[in-house]
Amino acid sequence: MENHVLELQFGLNTLYLVLCGALVMWMAGGFAMLEAGLVRARNTTEILAKNIGLFSIACLMYLVCGYAIMYGGDLFLSGIGLFDHGAELAASQAAGFDGDTRYATPADFFFQVVFVATACSIISGAVAERMKLWPFLLFVVFMTALIYPVEGGWTWGGKDVLFGLFNLGDLGFSDFAGAGIVHLAGASAALAGVLLLGPRQGKYGPDGKINAIPGANLPLATLGTLILWMGWFGFNGGSVLKVADMASAHSVAMVFLNTNTAAAGGAVAAMITARLLFGKADLTMILNGALAGLVTITAEAATPSALQATLFGMAGGVLVVFSILLLDRLKIDDPVGAISVHGTCGVLGLMLVPLTNVDATWVGQIVGALTIFAWVFGISLIVWGGLKFCFGLRVDPEEERAGVDVAECGMEAYPEFVNK
Amino acid sequence: MENHVLELQFGLNTLYLVLCGALVMWMAGGFAMLEAGLVRARNTTEILAKNIGLFSIACLMYLVCGYAIMYGGDLFLSGIGLFDHGAELAASQAAGFDGDTRYATPADFFFQVVFVATACSIISGAVAERMKLWPFLLFVVFMTALIYPVEGGWTWGGKDVLFGLFNLGDLGFSDFAGAGIVHLAGASAALAGVLLLGPRQGKYGPDGKINAIPGANLPLATLGTLILWMGWFGFNGGSVLKVADMASAHSVAMVFLNTNTAAAGGAVAAMITARLLFGKADLTMILNGALAGLVTITAEAATPSALQATLFGMAGGVLVVFSILLLDRLKIDDPVGAISVHGTCGVLGLMLVPLTNVDATWVGQIVGALTIFAWVFGISLIVWGGLKFCFGLRVDPEEERAGVDVAECGMEAYPEFVNK
Amino acid sequence: MENHVLELQFGLNTLYLVLCGALVMWMAGGFAMLEAGLVRARNTTEILAKNIGLFSIACLMYLVCGYAIMYGGDLFLSGIGLFDHGAELAASQAAGFDGDTRYATPADFFFQVVFVATACSIISGAVAERMKLWPFLLFVVFMTALIYPVEGGWTWGGKDVLFGLFNLGDLGFSDFAGAGIVHLAGASAALAGVLLLGPRQGKYGPDGKINAIPGANLPLATLGTLILWMGWFGFNGGSVLKVADMASAHSVAMVFLNTNTAAAGGAVAAMITARLLFGKADLTMILNGALAGLVTITAEAATPSALQATLFGMAGGVLVVFSILLLDRLKIDDPVGAISVHGTCGVLGLMLVPLTNVDATWVGQIVGALTIFAWVFGISLIVWGGLKFCFGLRVDPEEERAGVDVAECGMEAYPEFVNK
Repeated sequence: MENHVLELQFGLNTLYLVLCGALVMWMAGGFAMLEAGLVRARNTTEILAKNIGLFSIACLMYLVCGYAIMYGGDLFLSGIGLFDHGAELAASQAAGFDGDTRYATPADFFFQVVFVATACSIISGAVAERMKLWPFLLFVVFMTALIYPVEGGWTWGGKDVLFGLFNLGDLGFSDFAGAGIVHLAGASAALAGVLLLGPRQGKYGPDGKINAIPGANLPLATLGTLILWMGWFGFNGGSVLKVADMASAHSVAMVFLNTNTAAAGGAVAAMITARLLFGKADLTMILNGALAGLVTITAEAATPSALQATLFGMAGGVLVVFSILLLDRLKIDDPVGAISVHGTCGVLGLMLVPLTNVDATWVGQIVGALTIFAWVFGISLIVWGGLKFCFGLRVDPEEERAGVDVAECGMEAYPEFVNK
Repeated sequence: MENHVLELQFGLNTLYLVLCGALVMWMAGGFAMLEAGLVRARNTTEILAKNIGLFSIACLMYLVCGYAIMYGGDLFLSGIGLFDHGAELAASQAAGFDGDTRYATPADFFFQVVFVATACSIISGAVAERMKLWPFLLFVVFMTALIYPVEGGWTWGGKDVLFGLFNLGDLGFSDFAGAGIVHLAGASAALAGVLLLGPRQGKYGPDGKINAIPGANLPLATLGTLILWMGWFGFNGGSVLKVADMASAHSVAMVFLNTNTAAAGGAVAAMITARLLFGKADLTMILNGALAGLVTITAEAATPSALQATLFGMAGGVLVVFSILLLDRLKIDDPVGAISVHGTCGVLGLMLVPLTNVDATWVGQIVGALTIFAWVFGISLIVWGGLKFCFGLRVDPEEERAGVDVAECGMEAYPEFVNK
Repeated sequence: MENHVLELQFGLNTLYLVLCGALVMWMAGGFAMLEAGLVRARNTTEILAKNIGLFSIACLMYLVCGYAIMYGGDLFLSGIGLFDHGAELAASQAAGFDGDTRYATPADFFFQVVFVATACSIISGAVAERMKLWPFLLFVVFMTALIYPVEGGWTWGGKDVLFGLFNLGDLGFSDFAGAGIVHLAGASAALAGVLLLGPRQGKYGPDGKINAIPGANLPLATLGTLILWMGWFGFNGGSVLKVADMASAHSVAMVFLNTNTAAAGGAVAAMITARLLFGKADLTMILNGALAGLVTITAEAATPSALQATLFGMAGGVLVVFSILLLDRLKIDDPVGAISVHGTCGVLGLMLVPLTNVDATWVGQIVGALTIFAWVFGISLIVWGGLKFCFGLRVDPEEERAGVDVAECGMEAYPEFVNK
């Protein structure tokens, strides 16, 4: 009898984790649509190829070594050993009620691997419309095989892993679902790339004028945002890691509620902010406001009350508008606002954690955010620099003018629609 | 041991409810794509902004007071008290096997809040292409803070709630997942708005001719319909409210099956009806047929056999075609057919309930439908009227001609596609 | 107490199955978007109508008789008897711990019915841009009422069903989630249709030149692929059929992981193959590569290690590129590559099964694949031939030139975008 109950717990937690993982995988569709909607038509095929490519590469590299680096285990081709069906199963069954294994290990890998892909999806938008395809994909190899797993291991892996120099958790750092570990990390890598790459042609006039370059397909961008909103329930909701007991189930429910209300708060706050600043209901700001709310609550989605989550999301929604304006003022050209959404609001989220989670300290949050930024930004600069030296990062000026689709992919995204 | 089983029940029911809630949230994406696909290109950005805005506002207002009005509890900012993590959890654990709490309260709120948003999504399509953005969003505030919670409370809240004048259930009214409470209510509010707003320029010629105004992007409209179809599994499937026992699980499975087959029946019936009437496979009618089947079965998805559900869906699919034609004859301009899909078929669904559910009576269903319509239509007329008096409901004729996107949002949805 | 645990198992398995079924239903959206993105703008409305229509017809015909033919039971209108709520429930409860029923029967029907629709979705893409709408839908009636249920019954139904001439499983045939039974079957029916239909106007020049006919909307095609990728978690993940015990939960997790990694492997392999062959990152090949990986792993998703699954997916991703090129060389015009993705890679998947699953034999796999192909291709030729004789399969040359949308559906998909 007891065994049946144990097996049920195991089954429920496993189902919960793989379904949440499927929702996070769906975020790949969200990023692809968001970015495809916000670039110009002539750069759409390439951003789609980048998004499918980065997701796929992330899955492969994390299997080959990323997961092992982050959580410990055999380094090379951990896929062979780690997921030995029979051995895993026997271990789970032997562990029994008091064991640590509360779900099937492959479910854990599946849930983690889609997180890696998310971190990379953040980058592709920021470098859109001017970066070469293949160097970008090579950067993804480094990011998913090494850069992300090393920094992720510092919090989620602990000191026992290969690069376990320290455990940020011991220093009072808390990051519920990865506002820093995933989102700030992605934004930091993106910032390094953008700085080496420079702005798009015509974005900043010689007189300092900032030219808007409108996205070609706003329904796609909106769809992408709503896909991300939905997928985020898996991203945050799955990060409780179990649901088969009352306390965990309560946390999971609270996380779904807070994730939703923070996104709603972010959207409304950005809408009002844009109305006050520009006099219009700027749709791209509303979308970024919703995403800003989602990133902000990702740092701690379980402990805030619904009202606190709403206010945190609203803070993110206001901040993201000003962050986007500031980056443009600094001539840091981020076509989709990814650095502001995931970087600026990732930091905001981390700084708000100690307000509701007593295990986190301000010092710990600052140290954690700085550590993640310093590592990811620094090593990314080196990798981007190396790729620039070897292959060049930027497409030819002529190709950029004509759009990268034909040059890189040999096909237009909308061959019948665009006026030539 | 017994405690473990209780916790498992609690965990399973909670997971079920939040996943169904996530599917209902996804319906926001469905409405956004459906409406964006059925309006003209020049009004697309604005309808997207309305959809994101209304969903977000609905989430906030229902948190602030809507949920408390509908189900009882502290009125103002129930978010603070209702979702006290520790207290909730302790209560759930103390309740034990015989308690009423079978899932975490935040899961219930999350599931209910996305229903409110659905009711408002119905409205935005009907008033598309001519209503001002901000007055619409103000109406959403009233709808989600007061109009919907009051009428929802009459059935789902009972007599103990603030506006609990009566309990429609006591009168023999049964509405499984909200064909009346959500869909008819949304359509009633939409009808009131459309009557005060008038038809779009050029829709009805001076000679009484009805001019078709084709939607700009039918793949989007189709995607929206399929998103709604998928999300409806959460809408209806979650309305059983538990799944951790055999009878409930059986109901949940039956509801998924019936929801799917009713949609299929509606699509096929509308396709054949359109073929007979117009000689063509009218895609927008097929889409509305599927949605009509879904609305029809929403009134009672658990008790019909699969065959009955199919026939009910088919009845909806036929009816919606004639309802759309009739409304056009009456010069009630509903660009997406929302009043027919959600209103006409909502009533049809309610009238079919007594055929399979012995707890419902014809009298009860009629009284319920009339009560919902009278309240929502009446109070909506007053609110829309007040908004018209204060701000005006309709954009300038010149803005309407040029499209509301530039006037309201300052950006085009497809800047590179449209021939000018 | 024991009863509570039994009910929990039943509830968990049922929830798992209906959620997986909802994901498979979502694949209908994936096929619709994929196909709508890969055809020309003038044929988009019709392909959307076909996709909604085929899904709906499949659901109805499988209810009327398909399910009964495939799994046994009353032939006509099984919907009435099969889903008798009270009787089913009583049987489940009486069966108790040792019974075979581990989930609610309606959940099984729901999960199976969406598989039938998938088989038909494969066909619509291959015959796109030139086949008449109504004969196509009539073929779907035959496919879902008879052709698929008969061949599906040979493996999944056993000898007791109406057309149970043999059981392929007894012959050493193993097909985990339907790489042969669903995907190869759909591709076989498509091939028969394409052969009788001939290529599109202008696809093959008189000098043997193969002309590329680019799809109108690549973001849609990409979205469709990502929807299919997500939905496939339900397709494969649900095929374990239970999750409430440790071994099943482990399998489910492994299946999610393998499904994802095979898709990733397929995408990367196709990307590299296309780069080597064409010098570009051909987006449509990348998309087909991901789908090829998914089809390949569908034959056996539970027993391969993650590394094996990746390699199998990669093999699919390489093969699909060459298969598409070969079919074009043979002047078999398949606008979306469906025959290569689902047929060629379906066979590949079946042939790889014995490498990891000891219950399968090479002979059994070959016999199974040949049996499925021979039956579905042969009977489909007859049915397509009969439809050609009675109604004609192909639209008028003039209509084909102008696009089938106006002729068949009376409306354009993108009335404002296309340059005329």
